[in-house]
Amino acid sequence: MIKSRDKCGVFGIKSKSGVFDRIYYGLYALQHRGQESAGMAMCTDHIRVHKDMGLVTEVFNHIHLEGNIGIGHVRYSTTGGSKIENAQPLFIQYSGGNFAIAHNGNIINYAELRETLERRGSIFSTTSDTEMIAQLIAQEHTKLGDFVEGIKSAMNYLEGSYSLVILCDRKIIAVRDPHGFRPFVLGQSGEDYAVASESCALDCINMKLVRDIKPSEILVIGNCIESHFGPEKRTAHCMFEYVYFARPDSIINGKSVYEIRKNLGKTLAEEAPAKADRVIPVPDSGRTASIGYSRESKKTYGEGLMKNRYVGRTFIIPEQENREMEVKMKLNPIKSGIEGKSLVLVDDSLVRGTTMKQLIQIIKEANAKEVHVRISSPPIRYPCHYGIDMQTQTEFIASKKDIEGIRKEIGADSLAYISLEGLINAIGEPESELCLACLTGEYPIKRKEQTKLL
Amino acid sequence: MIKSRDKCGVFGIKSKSGVFDRIYYGLYALQHRGQESAGMAMCTDHIRVHKDMGLVTEVFNHIHLEGNIGIGHVRYSTTGGSKIENAQPLFIQYSGGNFAIAHNGNIINYAELRETLERRGSIFSTTSDTEMIAQLIAQEHTKLGDFVEGIKSAMNYLEGSYSLVILCDRKIIAVRDPHGFRPFVLGQSGEDYAVASESCALDCINMKLVRDIKPSEILVIGNCIESHFGPEKRTAHCMFEYVYFARPDSIINGKSVYEIRKNLGKTLAEEAPAKADRVIPVPDSGRTASIGYSRESKKTYGEGLMKNRYVGRTFIIPEQENREMEVKMKLNPIKSGIEGKSLVLVDDSLVRGTTMKQLIQIIKEANAKEVHVRISSPPIRYPCHYGIDMQTQTEFIASKKDIEGIRKEIGADSLAYISLEGLINAIGEPESELCLACLTGEYPIKRKEQTKLL
Amino acid sequence: MIKSRDKCGVFGIKSKSGVFDRIYYGLYALQHRGQESAGMAMCTDHIRVHKDMGLVTEVFNHIHLEGNIGIGHVRYSTTGGSKIENAQPLFIQYSGGNFAIAHNGNIINYAELRETLERRGSIFSTTSDTEMIAQLIAQEHTKLGDFVEGIKSAMNYLEGSYSLVILCDRKIIAVRDPHGFRPFVLGQSGEDYAVASESCALDCINMKLVRDIKPSEILVIGNCIESHFGPEKRTAHCMFEYVYFARPDSIINGKSVYEIRKNLGKTLAEEAPAKADRVIPVPDSGRTASIGYSRESKKTYGEGLMKNRYVGRTFIIPEQENREMEVKMKLNPIKSGIEGKSLVLVDDSLVRGTTMKQLIQIIKEANAKEVHVRISSPPIRYPCHYGIDMQTQTEFIASKKDIEGIRKEIGADSLAYISLEGLINAIGEPESELCLACLTGEYPIKRKEQTKLL
Amino acid sequence: MIKSRDKCGVFGIKSKSGVFDRIYYGLYALQHRGQESAGMAMCTDHIRVHKDMGLVTEVFNHIHLEGNIGIGHVRYSTTGGSKIENAQPLFIQYSGGNFAIAHNGNIINYAELRETLERRGSIFSTTSDTEMIAQLIAQEHTKLGDFVEGIKSAMNYLEGSYSLVILCDRKIIAVRDPHGFRPFVLGQSGEDYAVASESCALDCINMKLVRDIKPSEILVIGNCIESHFGPEKRTAHCMFEYVYFARPDSIINGKSVYEIRKNLGKTLAEEAPAKADRVIPVPDSGRTASIGYSRESKKTYGEGLMKNRYVGRTFIIPEQENREMEVKMKLNPIKSGIEGKSLVLVDDSLVRGTTMKQLIQIIKEANAKEVHVRISSPPIRYPCHYGIDMQTQTEFIASKKDIEGIRKEIGADSLAYISLEGLINAIGEPESELCLACLTGEYPIKRKEQTKLL
Repeated sequence: MIKSRDKCGVFGIKSKSGVFDRIYYGLYALQHRGQESAGMAMCTDHIRVHKDMGLVTEVFNHIHLEGNIGIGHVRYSTTGGSKIENAQPLFIQYSGGNFAIAHNGNIINYAELRETLERRGSIFSTTSDTEMIAQLIAQEHTKLGDFVEGIKSAMNYLEGSYSLVILCDRKIIAVRDPHGFRPFVLGQSGEDYAVASESCALDCINMKLVRDIKPSEILVIGNCIESHFGPEKRTAHCMFEYVYFARPDSIINGKSVYEIRKNLGKTLAEEAPAKADRVIPVPDSGRTASIGYSRESKKTYGEGLMKNRYVGRTFIIPEQENREMEVKMKLNPIKSGIEGKSLVLVDDSLVRGTTMKQLIQIIKEANAKEVHVRISSPPIRYPCHYGIDMQTQTEFIASKKDIEGIRKEIGADSLAYISLEGLINAIGEPESELCLACLTGEYPIKRKEQTKLL
Repeated sequence: MIKSRDKCGVFGIKSKSGVFDRIYYGLYALQHRGQESAGMAMCTDHIRVHKDMGLVTEVFNHIHLEGNIGIGHVRYSTTGGSKIENAQPLFIQYSGGNFAIAHNGNIINYAELRETLERRGSIFSTTSDTEMIAQLIAQEHTKLGDFVEGIKSAMNYLEGSYSLVILCDRKIIAVRDPHGFRPFVLGQSGEDYAVASESCALDCINMKLVRDIKPSEILVIGNCIESHFGPEKRTAHCMFEYVYFARPDSIINGKSVYEIRKNLGKTLAEEAPAKADRVIPVPDSGRTASIGYSRESKKTYGEGLMKNRYVGRTFIIPEQENREMEVKMKLNPIKSGIEGKSLVLVDDSLVRGTTMKQLIQIIKEANAKEVHVRISSPPIRYPCHYGIDMQTQTEFIASKKDIEGIRKEIGADSLAYISLEGLINAIGEPESELCLACLTGEYPIKRKEQTKLL
Repeated sequence: MIKSRDKCGVFGIKSKSGVFDRIYYGLYALQHRGQESAGMAMCTDHIRVHKDMGLVTEVFNHIHLEGNIGIGHVRYSTTGGSKIENAQPLFIQYSGGNFAIAHNGNIINYAELRETLERRGSIFSTTSDTEMIAQLIAQEHTKLGDFVEGIKSAMNYLEGSYSLVILCDRKIIAVRDPHGFRPFVLGQSGEDYAVASESCALDCINMKLVRDIKPSEILVIGNCIESHFGPEKRTAHCMFEYVYFARPDSIINGKSVYEIRKNLGKTLAEEAPAKADRVIPVPDSGRTASIGYSRESKKTYGEGLMKNRYVGRTFIIPEQENREMEVKMKLNPIKSGIEGKSLVLVDDSLVRGTTMKQLIQIIKEANAKEVHVRISSPPIRYPCHYGIDMQTQTEFIASKKDIEGIRKEIGADSLAYISLEGLINAIGEPESELCLACLTGEYPIKRKEQTKLL
Repeated sequence: MIKSRDKCGVFGIKSKSGVFDRIYYGLYALQHRGQESAGMAMCTDHIRVHKDMGLVTEVFNHIHLEGNIGIGHVRYSTTGGSKIENAQPLFIQYSGGNFAIAHNGNIINYAELRETLERRGSIFSTTSDTEMIAQLIAQEHTKLGDFVEGIKSAMNYLEGSYSLVILCDRKIIAVRDPHGFRPFVLGQSGEDYAVASESCALDCINMKLVRDIKPSEILVIGNCIESHFGPEKRTAHCMFEYVYFARPDSIINGKSVYEIRKNLGKTLAEEAPAKADRVIPVPDSGRTASIGYSRESKKTYGEGLMKNRYVGRTFIIPEQENREMEVKMKLNPIKSGIEGKSLVLVDDSLVRGTTMKQLIQIIKEANAKEVHVRISSPPIRYPCHYGIDMQTQTEFIASKKDIEGIRKEIGADSLAYISLEGLINAIGEPESELCLACLTGEYPIKRKEQTKLL
């Protein structure tokens, strides 16, 4: 159960008729990618932006925007640093015209690029990388005189992950970084086209998934669809989108997230069987993998933990008790499914291990005989630079302890992670096209090669 | 998937130390029983009440109440009729003293009793049955001079379902109606005692489930625990608490809700097997039964529908589109788990059939080969008078059509309900101790026998 | 500058057409009588109530109620004790029917009457005297079988000040206590009739002031206008309504408040001339009297203090500084009107004297040569029991010090109050028809004579 | 009664101790200059900004910022166009460092400068002139290497009115445009210094008014106070600050606003006497001038209209009635001061004349014998380009009708405006140092001379 940060969802659509409802539905389907803020930019004769802190249903309560073309964004909630200034889409105006932009990802050479842009004369009013991307594109556009060329040039400088939707000149432009870190798909219904972070956002508006936006692709949706390409780099799909972050009903990079998660569970069962009566998930993050584990191991699947759905954003543990209480509030054992039983408990990942430790304690207090923890991703040992916040390296329990040490720490009767090979096979993509940096420390982007912005 | 109304959750606790946190956690665990309003009454040297519209976490955001003894309440949200006046606990003062009261249930002779009380001189400022119960108890107390005798006398008049918690004279009094319609449990930790609608509210505060409050019991938690009893009637536990309403991690009437639901699925598999590749639930209402069905039928369990968790209270389908859109927003097919497959789709109940019809349509559009619907309760044909709102009789699809007619209407390839016998056996209680009125039309309370209030 | 409490404004209207707008405007005009909460009860085929904490414009933002007959209420803000439960109108139902009621005043035998009603069987859910009045009327109505007779009977028991509007049976009933403490007027436009606390509420809806509701009158506005009378007592118009509380543009008890205040200033100038260059008011409370003083004394009128209008309800002195800061925030000297001048500073009253002390300090710091304080009411030495909260007797500076002592305390160069005779003459009513209790200690209601409720 | 737009209030302070409270009080005193949004930027080791829509008391409810140096801003409310993006202070970062800036005024060559900056590569995310000023200063700073030189250079390009406070490098920099359109003052208390739009903001924090910031001055408040100057131009103090906008208790440009308003009234009495019994103001805008008129004419001063103070921001005339109702809601005649009398009615200005027309109608309905309107500014015929929004030229009643025509239109018995000479003399500044553009059409800034930004 990773807590991610800086993750977002993006959406864009061009139609013959009003698109407000479809952006609303699309963002709602992407809400799991960000609950902090939501926003839309819509174009009639000019571009209008509405954005605010809150869920899609809250931000657009009693709001309607006109227009047959528009983009939208949802942003993840972090404690403290969340501010209205960082809500997207961002709208900017410059000598070359104006555009609205929304971004999902993380630019790793943000500081250098920003410094360079500042040296060139850029002035910033936020600390978001989206403002930096926008200024870079605007500058390159101005320099080169063509918007797509400007984007292409900007892509030569930008290092990191980015799925961008841009609303400009009555066109939607979708840009995916050359590594293709974050998912990004194209949908169609008749003459209407949409782009979205995940395919689940297309389903709910009755659009057909056409294909992925390709790594490095600049897809221009105007009167026709044009495809341009920026620099070529090795593909590096984020394995964590498959393991945890994307919705199981989404198809990303041409693959069913649900099937991959089930395969992860199956592989885990093959690699790490357990003497147990029952397979139970940590809800909801471990559910699909636990179904796979159960099928492969022929062990009975059950639900052993009940998740409280009513947390809400004002949820505060009164009087600052310990984090243990927080786990207790969210997950309660279903005793009859636990008592006297040996359990396989499946989750997607272990970061600090503290939540799992408390969970096992709760399960043991409900008189489980044994708890065998199975994790559907290999140990996380290196921080993500491409958009998933997993705390600093020193916080990873797997950086500090070996597997036996972790097992003792969390109080499990046995502990196993899926192997790297198992993960790769379950995903079904060549290792060379995945980003496994958080597991291996081999980052797809070598910082030395980085192009200097002059 | 029933939408219930007038359902509530109640909680009460007496301790040696401050109880605010524990009432807060307890109500939070009961939040599924009511999201409209929340409230607490706490006693120090006098009784203070705080209540408002909203979730527990919203109503008690930045609020703290002192006291070692208190009660709490959550109330279900309905459209329109929800008002702050109806929030509970209710606090009243009269010649005999004062008390705070919270109620879960429905008094069926409310109108008659209210009229009689008005004739006797009572004056009402709300239309809630809780105000009527409070005035009746206060009057009987005044007449008889003893509070418990007053409650006993009131119980002779009250017809219907009620689980009451009363905060009075530094005591908690828990009262359960003679039929025991709604669940009500007693918990303990050292010298601290609590009562709650469901045992899940005890788990999260580290209290042990001692036993159920018995039908007709008046349990007084003061310096010691005293048990009194009102009129004796036949037990009539609501079968719908087992089938749908209570949380699966709760133990009510001495039975595990999770185990019963699993049994319902197993029985359904025995009674109504289906030629299918996969068993999938309508999430979350059909999940446990579908696990049981899968186990018994040896058919693979899977998740075929993804539920969006971010509905929130301001969720409004923009521009009032059809209800179909609402279903689409909440449930999306996981295509890889559906495509080309014959499915058993399990849910807890069918009321009007409209949601199921749309769901099947969505699933068929995702290219399922066949959809075999299995319902873990028998057809609902009669309205509930005891606290679960199931619309009027004319709205029940099972009142208007036979099973084949319903199957055609919803577009399923086959349809089966669990049998009445199957239901009773799966619950494991004698038929004579269950309320099955919504299925059979045989209501535990015959209106003619009703005691007249003079 | 008195801070009053328990003061309210009431309004009622019957028309051939919708009355929502007129109640809204009427309450808005009475907003100075209460800013804590606002509410309306409107009758179509049944009575509906909407009320909430806040100003009229806030409570009825986006709200519209249907109906040709209705009543309204505004309630004064106090710190802390303000609660939604106390908002009015109150709606009650009983064997005799139902009615909505709103009240301005204070019942001094509230505790005794409540106790008696509790002994008779009444049950209360608030501590407001309005609920007690409502229950008393309902009981007397039930006993006597006629609503007006019920009110008459209730009036025999009620001691204190009350201006009631009742919405009942498609009639508006206005009831003024036998002493006529609080103002209460009748307005007309064609066949439409309205009653209101002050005539300013009639002006804004283009209604003509017909006359006052008379002390002890029960005015029934149905298809025709009927007038009944309760017990006869000596008239006792509150002198403070003239001096401070009512709006200067109102005509109450047949007298122009503006003219009376001007007369008070004139009288004060005759009785207590001052060697000064300029007459300035404490804005806004002393303005009209200071104009009178200026005219009579032939001394130049000026504005020497600027009042900040933007206080708002969230106004909190940050970090709890002293009260001096509060005065500074609200009133700032206009230096050029003060510097080097001898001033007459006119205000309506002195209660604790602390605000005046700070004001004089501020004025002296702005280099005024002399400050001669003139107060347009005699010294307040006794608490008000009839609806104006002036703190307890021990807080009145005039209870503790003689005039010279007060002068020294507040730092004025001279201090004079209007004489009792001066006040009476300026008002122009016989002493026997005024309530002067807070000045003389002679309360119009002798508690011994009080009728016992059996 | 002008409705102004784009008017703002600015404040800045440097102290040895925490300044939050003093900025709060200062902004509160400037609240009349802007009620739309409020904000502060405070510096400890870095600059933090808090700003939001709402009054000062609302935006800083429960908020406290640390720091011994900071700036603040209030912004005027307009319907519709008000947005959080336009709230100030604005914080920007660039190669030269970072600063926070707040602005009161209007840049008339905004569009040209912005276009030029865009051509130079600037990118804008708002349409506010403050963002343009900030970028211009940042660019010039970067070019010239010195911040003050950067400001000086920017001043060569900026045409229009601006009073800027800048928080930068632990200094407060106050900049006033070379014409000195908007007021701007310096205050001191010991070693603490503050700058503010008006002196009333110094009074409430016990600071002494030292002097005005001079036209074209760049005042740097760091460890010492340094004064620099930008381009020299003719002084052009806005006459409307004296006539209407500033608070009467302020001293701006070395002159008492109260004294000037009184003089305007006196001059008006000399120039345009009237046969009348009474002089009354339109409250509050005409009050001071009416006092002056009364004194000079020896005619009795009175209050004939009562202003309702409780308008609030949610004030909406229900069901969109006519504007007449709006006037009625805000101003009610005090009949006894009007009836049968010939009145001089004094206000500060006439823009469209519609409000005055309705007011006269209300007064006549209250049976005034005659209404002689006297306006303490000459007819407004030309739009303001320097920060006061007076609608477009075609809306000015004085652009379309002569004085007799206006008199007829508003229904007055006589009408007179103060003469231009009278105005100038009453203000007491040479004509050459005033901006009288809205009266004469002679704008201090000739657009042709404008320096081009290369």
